[in-house]
Amino acid sequence: MISTDVVIIGAGPCGLFQVFELGLLGLKSVIVDSIPRPGGQCSELYPDKPIYDIPAIPVCTGDELTQRLLQQIKPFDCRMYLGEEVTELGQPDAEHFTVATNKGTTLQSRAVVIAGGVGSFQPRPMRAEGVDDCAGKTLHYRVQDPGRFKDSKIVVFGGGDSALDWALELVNIAKHVTLVHRRDEYRAMPASVSRLRELQAAGRLDVIERAKASSIEHTDGQMSSITVQVKGGEPVTLPADHALVFFGLAPKLGPIAEWGLDINRKTINVDTEKFETSTPGIYAVGDINHYPGKKKLILCGFHEAALAAFAIKQRLEPDRKVHVQYTTTSPIMHERLGVED
Amino acid sequence: MISTDVVIIGAGPCGLFQVFELGLLGLKSVIVDSIPRPGGQCSELYPDKPIYDIPAIPVCTGDELTQRLLQQIKPFDCRMYLGEEVTELGQPDAEHFTVATNKGTTLQSRAVVIAGGVGSFQPRPMRAEGVDDCAGKTLHYRVQDPGRFKDSKIVVFGGGDSALDWALELVNIAKHVTLVHRRDEYRAMPASVSRLRELQAAGRLDVIERAKASSIEHTDGQMSSITVQVKGGEPVTLPADHALVFFGLAPKLGPIAEWGLDINRKTINVDTEKFETSTPGIYAVGDINHYPGKKKLILCGFHEAALAAFAIKQRLEPDRKVHVQYTTTSPIMHERLGVED
Repeated sequence: MISTDVVIIGAGPCGLFQVFELGLLGLKSVIVDSIPRPGGQCSELYPDKPIYDIPAIPVCTGDELTQRLLQQIKPFDCRMYLGEEVTELGQPDAEHFTVATNKGTTLQSRAVVIAGGVGSFQPRPMRAEGVDDCAGKTLHYRVQDPGRFKDSKIVVFGGGDSALDWALELVNIAKHVTLVHRRDEYRAMPASVSRLRELQAAGRLDVIERAKASSIEHTDGQMSSITVQVKGGEPVTLPADHALVFFGLAPKLGPIAEWGLDINRKTINVDTEKFETSTPGIYAVGDINHYPGKKKLILCGFHEAALAAFAIKQRLEPDRKVHVQYTTTSPIMHERLGVED
Repeated sequence: MISTDVVIIGAGPCGLFQVFELGLLGLKSVIVDSIPRPGGQCSELYPDKPIYDIPAIPVCTGDELTQRLLQQIKPFDCRMYLGEEVTELGQPDAEHFTVATNKGTTLQSRAVVIAGGVGSFQPRPMRAEGVDDCAGKTLHYRVQDPGRFKDSKIVVFGGGDSALDWALELVNIAKHVTLVHRRDEYRAMPASVSRLRELQAAGRLDVIERAKASSIEHTDGQMSSITVQVKGGEPVTLPADHALVFFGLAPKLGPIAEWGLDINRKTINVDTEKFETSTPGIYAVGDINHYPGKKKLILCGFHEAALAAFAIKQRLEPDRKVHVQYTTTSPIMHERLGVED
């Protein structure tokens, strides 16, 4: 188990700047993010688009903003666990938190900052009778071990790259593959679509377009068939051992919603002084928090990160008075940067 | 009288960024500052020192920060009245404000943002019996018309450049000049000190060192003499028509303190949602405001400026719903910057 002062959940701009603000106050932090790269929405949603409203940076792209922040926090040697989703947040005692990820990492800290942006990107769920019973057993939103589908009857749902990639791959090992897509146009790469058409023409897989699942027939989650409704046509029942569903990713609070925090729709309520959640010692900054007057602007998240850092310092070292200091004369910056006083 | 949407008092970083945030929402603004250059404390107090805590700018000097902000607000053609101190803030009706400066400029607006930093830099006052009665009549903290001192008996107080410059200049027209300094070392330029010594040796002016004024003898503010106390010596009484006092400048709220706003020591109380003062339509951002949890950090002022801008937009155009928007897709930025959509 790795110990640190503060675990920051989220490697977007606010999570990165949180490292800096904590570092300035002499606190160590580590970052965890489910996305395998730092930058959050900036890097995922608009890496190449110009951003104009970062103070004193007339224009930069999302990627440039991320690079600038990474450079700014370099003096603080922050360890990052990327591509790991935080699944559990525990509080073994009043002073400590444990954070566990889906990759088996466990971290211990004395405070937690949730800088989760719009939440983690979760697979969009299928809506049909029987889905809840089969999900995680014979209905899958991601593939971890393709070998388990050997010699099975597989129905793949979706029209994007993930759906086509898996349909084209599993056709080699499965007993039978059917691709079901709600439209007749594909978001997948043209080469994949061409290959799909070839295999379809060769009778190696079936494709059903303009169709949606209406029900899954199953016994205790072990599916036997899936009934799909073709637009303007009759229902079709497909024998099936497994369904793979690739409807894209959507931002969700995800596991954060289960941590007992005071939640306001998809955001976490915090106060306006410390940006602390309803659980003392757990803070939330950036797009994921909510307070009266909240605006989802990157620069507001930076402000919140600064104030949360002061509050955390106060919590962890209550006897030490912390003064706001010009960084120009900050001993910590001078030490970190090797500046001679 | 010049009309605009918003008058911003203060050309420091927060005042400059306020122009940007208002501009993004389609509101016009003008800036007034008593200092003849933009940049506020950044330019006045630490123009060349490195600042490390501006988000996504790993290091920059105060001057660089100012230049970057000036570049960022360039698309919004903000007019600046620099070197003009705001002396009066009036509210002719519930919807309008008038701002008047000591240079005779009058501005009308529908909202006012006070981004006054630590306040305006005001002359440090002299403390001695009779000062209050003579101030503004025969005791002066600045010289506007040197001609009025012709053939008068003048006592100049101070040891910096202003004190020596005026003593050396007035010696040519006054009946008699005495310089009184509390130390025997001078902060003025060495050339001025040499010249002072020459004139003193030639008997053209008197210099009294290690001395302070203890009282001013006067009739209804018309002084007749000033008594000074030399350290470890006897009091000396100097015949005097006028006293000029140059004890340096200190930040003060200045005229802002007279505008009927809810004041907390040297700061202005605001709410944490709109950063509005006790007078609706008047906002305060940056170091000059106070609210629970306030930290005097530049980046917090940027956040406040953004939220104040939204609040002002709401006040001025209550029927129009304002959405937070990525600037990446902002029609206003595209229009201002000539970006093709």
